[in-house]
Amino acid sequence: MGGGLAGTEYELDRGIAVTAIGPGEYAAELDAGWVVGGGLNGGYLLAVIGNAIRTELLESGQPDPVSVSAYYLTPTVPGPAVVRVRRIRSGGARATVAATLTQVQDGVECERITVLAVFGDLDRMPAEIERELPPVVLPPLEQCLESRDAPEEVRRIAPLLERFGTRLDPAYAGWAIGEPSRSGIIQGWFRLVDDRPLDPVALLLVVDALPPVTFDLGLPGWAPTLELTVHVRRRPAPGWAIVRHATRTVAGGHFEEDCEVWDSEGHLVAQSRQLALLPRPPR
Amino acid sequence: MGGGLAGTEYELDRGIAVTAIGPGEYAAELDAGWVVGGGLNGGYLLAVIGNAIRTELLESGQPDPVSVSAYYLTPTVPGPAVVRVRRIRSGGARATVAATLTQVQDGVECERITVLAVFGDLDRMPAEIERELPPVVLPPLEQCLESRDAPEEVRRIAPLLERFGTRLDPAYAGWAIGEPSRSGIIQGWFRLVDDRPLDPVALLLVVDALPPVTFDLGLPGWAPTLELTVHVRRRPAPGWAIVRHATRTVAGGHFEEDCEVWDSEGHLVAQSRQLALLPRPPR
Repeated sequence: MGGGLAGTEYELDRGIAVTAIGPGEYAAELDAGWVVGGGLNGGYLLAVIGNAIRTELLESGQPDPVSVSAYYLTPTVPGPAVVRVRRIRSGGARATVAATLTQVQDGVECERITVLAVFGDLDRMPAEIERELPPVVLPPLEQCLESRDAPEEVRRIAPLLERFGTRLDPAYAGWAIGEPSRSGIIQGWFRLVDDRPLDPVALLLVVDALPPVTFDLGLPGWAPTLELTVHVRRRPAPGWAIVRHATRTVAGGHFEEDCEVWDSEGHLVAQSRQLALLPRPPR
Repeated sequence: MGGGLAGTEYELDRGIAVTAIGPGEYAAELDAGWVVGGGLNGGYLLAVIGNAIRTELLESGQPDPVSVSAYYLTPTVPGPAVVRVRRIRSGGARATVAATLTQVQDGVECERITVLAVFGDLDRMPAEIERELPPVVLPPLEQCLESRDAPEEVRRIAPLLERFGTRLDPAYAGWAIGEPSRSGIIQGWFRLVDDRPLDPVALLLVVDALPPVTFDLGLPGWAPTLELTVHVRRRPAPGWAIVRHATRTVAGGHFEEDCEVWDSEGHLVAQSRQLALLPRPPR
């Protein structure tokens, strides 16, 4: 049994494909194309786990992530991985599950990420919108900066940039030329470069797809995520999404990064918050 | 072995006391004094779980909650409960754990809440504050509304109000007289009525101590929490805290409630977000 979306022409679907190898147990092949810096992108890994949970819950009618909380334990590397999904509660419209992503390292199985999640069916939820955070206003696409135009040395350590069609708002992209705005914001237009439509599982990737918001504070470097929770609020419409990252409190060696994603119709489709460690200053 | 804080004169410490009954296994007696409406307050339950994790990790030097994500499964009732704590990773300054709170119902053990958490030592974190969300400006205490002054029929279904020294900002308390501001905000001063000092475990209670923000939208009733994540950012100073709840997107039958807590010195000490179900309209 494949992963529902496996075998299509899209890079993301190949990258998150899972194969059932036992009850609640799925094999994945983590793709080096989603590496950034020293490790695999946390959003990509969350989409792999999300796809395994989706596959596990498809038949019981709870295919969509509603809330996913991930705790990142040890750095994940490209290659084989196993996702195990355990149903905790599955009454009615929603299922609550625990999941882990593990890899074998030096002959020992290591837990990389541990997750709690609620899945449901976004199409069966009420349509009413009582109030909704409106999307940020971005400059037109042609005035935004393509991350694929980043310098060659950046693209070499971040091959995942080639998979994103991100167009960054230049107001918060000065860090790329050593002039961070120090606003604690990074925002832009987002699509996958092969136009793979965004769906609820893909949103788990989108909330961690922009550079860390610390770049805009003049703090380059890897910012390890301790915890990331995503709430998927609505099935996204096709087309360009708008993504905004912001941080408001950077203290005690930690910062939170809030992310909102709006679809091409202006609806809030996902929101997330992560707690991450401040990058260490370069030595 | 007691729960570290057990046996003191404070209501909260009595309510969250735990007793070790096996490896990683703690007994608690959930106190009917923390009931609101039909069930026990979700923040109180999180503080019980947090106290069990704290007790488990005290000796390894990771006594403080840093990030706690709770998934609420089934309604908890006053009486005996068991908290089980499983260490997932405990290298260096931080430990990651999974925990569950269970109760026996009709002879069967039922999982009530399942949690993932990172604990550490807030005193060993760097002191630098790079940026910090400033506290909201509230009217002076004497101009705010005491929740203990709520009508007798409210106090009867919410005995926990007697334990909180909440003083609500009147600008967002009109719902109490049928005139909600419809801003999606509830905020006020907070202390425990017996002046029990707020500490990191108590903050797990504080983030869920105000009435649901849906009251301010004219939507009274119980709003069941699906998921609640708290980040404790700093050890709180003694004295009155400031607490703000806000929601920005109420759609698809769900709403998020963001909470910030500042201590008496104006520092952001905790932030949380929960995803909850909209209360059903009264029939």
